[in-house]
Amino acid sequence: MSDRAAVVLLSGGLDSAVTLAVARSEGFACHCLSIDYGQRHRIEIDAAGKVAKALGATQHKVVRFDLRVFGASALTDPAIDVPEAPGEGIPATYVPARNTIFLSLALAWGEVLGASDIFIGANAVDYSGYPDCRPEYLHAFEAMANLATKAGVEGKRLTLHRPLIYLTKAEIIRRGANLDVNLADTVSCYQATAEGLACGRCDACRLRRAGFERARISDPTRYA
Amino acid sequence: MSDRAAVVLLSGGLDSAVTLAVARSEGFACHCLSIDYGQRHRIEIDAAGKVAKALGATQHKVVRFDLRVFGASALTDPAIDVPEAPGEGIPATYVPARNTIFLSLALAWGEVLGASDIFIGANAVDYSGYPDCRPEYLHAFEAMANLATKAGVEGKRLTLHRPLIYLTKAEIIRRGANLDVNLADTVSCYQATAEGLACGRCDACRLRRAGFERARISDPTRYA
Repeated sequence: MSDRAAVVLLSGGLDSAVTLAVARSEGFACHCLSIDYGQRHRIEIDAAGKVAKALGATQHKVVRFDLRVFGASALTDPAIDVPEAPGEGIPATYVPARNTIFLSLALAWGEVLGASDIFIGANAVDYSGYPDCRPEYLHAFEAMANLATKAGVEGKRLTLHRPLIYLTKAEIIRRGANLDVNLADTVSCYQATAEGLACGRCDACRLRRAGFERARISDPTRYA
Repeated sequence: MSDRAAVVLLSGGLDSAVTLAVARSEGFACHCLSIDYGQRHRIEIDAAGKVAKALGATQHKVVRFDLRVFGASALTDPAIDVPEAPGEGIPATYVPARNTIFLSLALAWGEVLGASDIFIGANAVDYSGYPDCRPEYLHAFEAMANLATKAGVEGKRLTLHRPLIYLTKAEIIRRGANLDVNLADTVSCYQATAEGLACGRCDACRLRRAGFERARISDPTRYA
């Protein structure tokens, strides 16, 4: 087991929790980063704290950056409703450039820590149609990141790990269960209550519920 | 003259002011973005406001993101001194991943505005050795940005303009003077006083002063 430092983006959702478990299983000392960006589902941040602790993270940092200054997403703008049925194209819950901003913050923190590894739970299979979850996007971010920092100039290679990128939701859930992730701690719902109860109707809830069904694992999610 | 919307990163320094003037001369409706990131030289933000107004920006948005949460730069960490002589390698004033974070925020705002053009005053000639001012870095960011957003998915091309990239400081100053930029409004000093007086000794002051000398333009900078 190495104890190389890695920065792990941790939202409090299911995918990033499993990603943290994968990083831990590979021996990384995990510095978890959560971004409180003014999202509707702030309960996610509390969930992230629980998950980080349960999975033995080295530290968990919550950074506030209020993406509501730019508006234009159902996740940050109270005037836009969260859709309750899958639609065509890119959904209203897409937050402009969110992964680019989050990965940039992970890059900054990684540079300060001397970490050459960043983990993100992005997924291109059972995903919600977000441009910044696509493999080609993540590949381009990694290429850019390798030119962006001191480490890059000094020839130290940065790796952007996306261990879930080609897994279905059911496979992610199975992977998490095998790695002893307490999936009940995670919150996926876009409009979870302050107590962490899921609506059961939004895209994120539908994907999660179907994933548990297909994985034949009993769904620990508490629905409102 | 077109009136296409562009996002212009505006720090309040000399380079970004000239960049805004270039964007305006090309007919862009300029949405200026300044980031208050906990830098020592906050007077820059006031300078940015003056510059935006003087050059006819459509709007000027100041976004707060405190990069001090990550530490490790003389510009944000009061425990690290600003160097007063040019050294070897990457200087202490380098802020980890700063341009990547700023450009990501510009990308997010641009997407909300429907703007396909971003301007940055990065410079690779009389620069301070920052990795994220290099042409190859900016090229990689543009490639990533074109995969990151809704516009990218829909085939709308995003352009990252870096009009000063190959200019010397003297050429930038001449360009600014030709475009009637009031260079006295700009603040370059890393440790300017609250009144905007420059120290005259830091790297940024040295580069700026030498630029005015070489451009044979009288230096309007107010030194402490």
